[in-house]
Amino acid sequence: MKKELSSKAIQRLTLYHFILRDYMLKGIEHISSQQIAALLKIDDSQVRKDVTFCKTQGKTKVGYNVLELRKAIEDLLGFERRKDVFIVGAGNLGFALAKYDDFKDYGLDVLALFDIDEKKVDRSINGKKIFHISKFEDLVKQMGVEIAVLTVPANVAQEVADILAKAKIKYVWNFTTTVLDVPDDIKVHNENIMGNFLDFTNK
Amino acid sequence: MKKELSSKAIQRLTLYHFILRDYMLKGIEHISSQQIAALLKIDDSQVRKDVTFCKTQGKTKVGYNVLELRKAIEDLLGFERRKDVFIVGAGNLGFALAKYDDFKDYGLDVLALFDIDEKKVDRSINGKKIFHISKFEDLVKQMGVEIAVLTVPANVAQEVADILAKAKIKYVWNFTTTVLDVPDDIKVHNENIMGNFLDFTNK
Repeated sequence: MKKELSSKAIQRLTLYHFILRDYMLKGIEHISSQQIAALLKIDDSQVRKDVTFCKTQGKTKVGYNVLELRKAIEDLLGFERRKDVFIVGAGNLGFALAKYDDFKDYGLDVLALFDIDEKKVDRSINGKKIFHISKFEDLVKQMGVEIAVLTVPANVAQEVADILAKAKIKYVWNFTTTVLDVPDDIKVHNENIMGNFLDFTNK
Repeated sequence: MKKELSSKAIQRLTLYHFILRDYMLKGIEHISSQQIAALLKIDDSQVRKDVTFCKTQGKTKVGYNVLELRKAIEDLLGFERRKDVFIVGAGNLGFALAKYDDFKDYGLDVLALFDIDEKKVDRSINGKKIFHISKFEDLVKQMGVEIAVLTVPANVAQEVADILAKAKIKYVWNFTTTVLDVPDDIKVHNENIMGNFLDFTNK
């Protein structure tokens, strides 16, 4: 990915991709920067600026070709690069993420889930097996997985993060409300939905 | 909330609050800006700057009082202002959010869930009843709810958003991968976790 692409631009381009999927499903061939901008309530010059990062061009009065722009965003954001993940915590949120088939369109492949609850172990959800957490380190090594999605309860999150660190996982996508204490070579993204909510409703 | 507080500052202050909760649970009385910064791998001057928005002060060589700083963040971010929400879509994600008791600590109160599936209607999850979506508009009016959390499948999201708009909901917290077309007076926050993931794993 190009270095100039900011986090906000990646966020916006992902939303454009959602819009393009819906246009595609409706069989609409072209979309203008104004149409995208109106849905997101942003300025259309912003859309045009973001699209300059993509290998596609719009046509005056016609707009962008929906399939071309969609493919160009996928190339830019690397959807074709497969990213294998393990979900750690087979609760409702872990299940919701495991059942989310759209993930595959974005290159994210959930290979398995892990939990400490013996009643859940060996069950499957959406074709993905649930393993006991004691198997985590071995399976990370065998399958070369670098990304863990953490969906355990907050009060055990640090303990589980220690297991992830020991298994030399590289990325932790943290959905818990615990700030994890992990070695510097592990990248953590805090999916801080509570912060988003407070930001959103207080404005 | 003060206007100067940026989205990023709100995000960080929420994470500080998570850290303070853990310190409190461990019975630790003081925390330094360096300790907070080390956990989040950010600069400690950033922490001190953010804390200036709070009505509390640290002491040299001792740091911040954990309980005081926690309370000051809660006051600043308005945790005591109760925000009633309806969850629309009683699937795994809706259930995960309905079962998430920590929400209440942040002022977010899930009053009920809605779904179209008659098999789910009248059941309860974590003490919250599931209603048929046809009851949504009436209950919004009766209970004065302004915030809807949208957790339905992407392919029906727009159709459901139209129901939310008709009920004059003010805020939609959108967890679907559909960009919603709603009137300008409705504020939508796209909880774009796919964009976050792409941003996180591509860097």
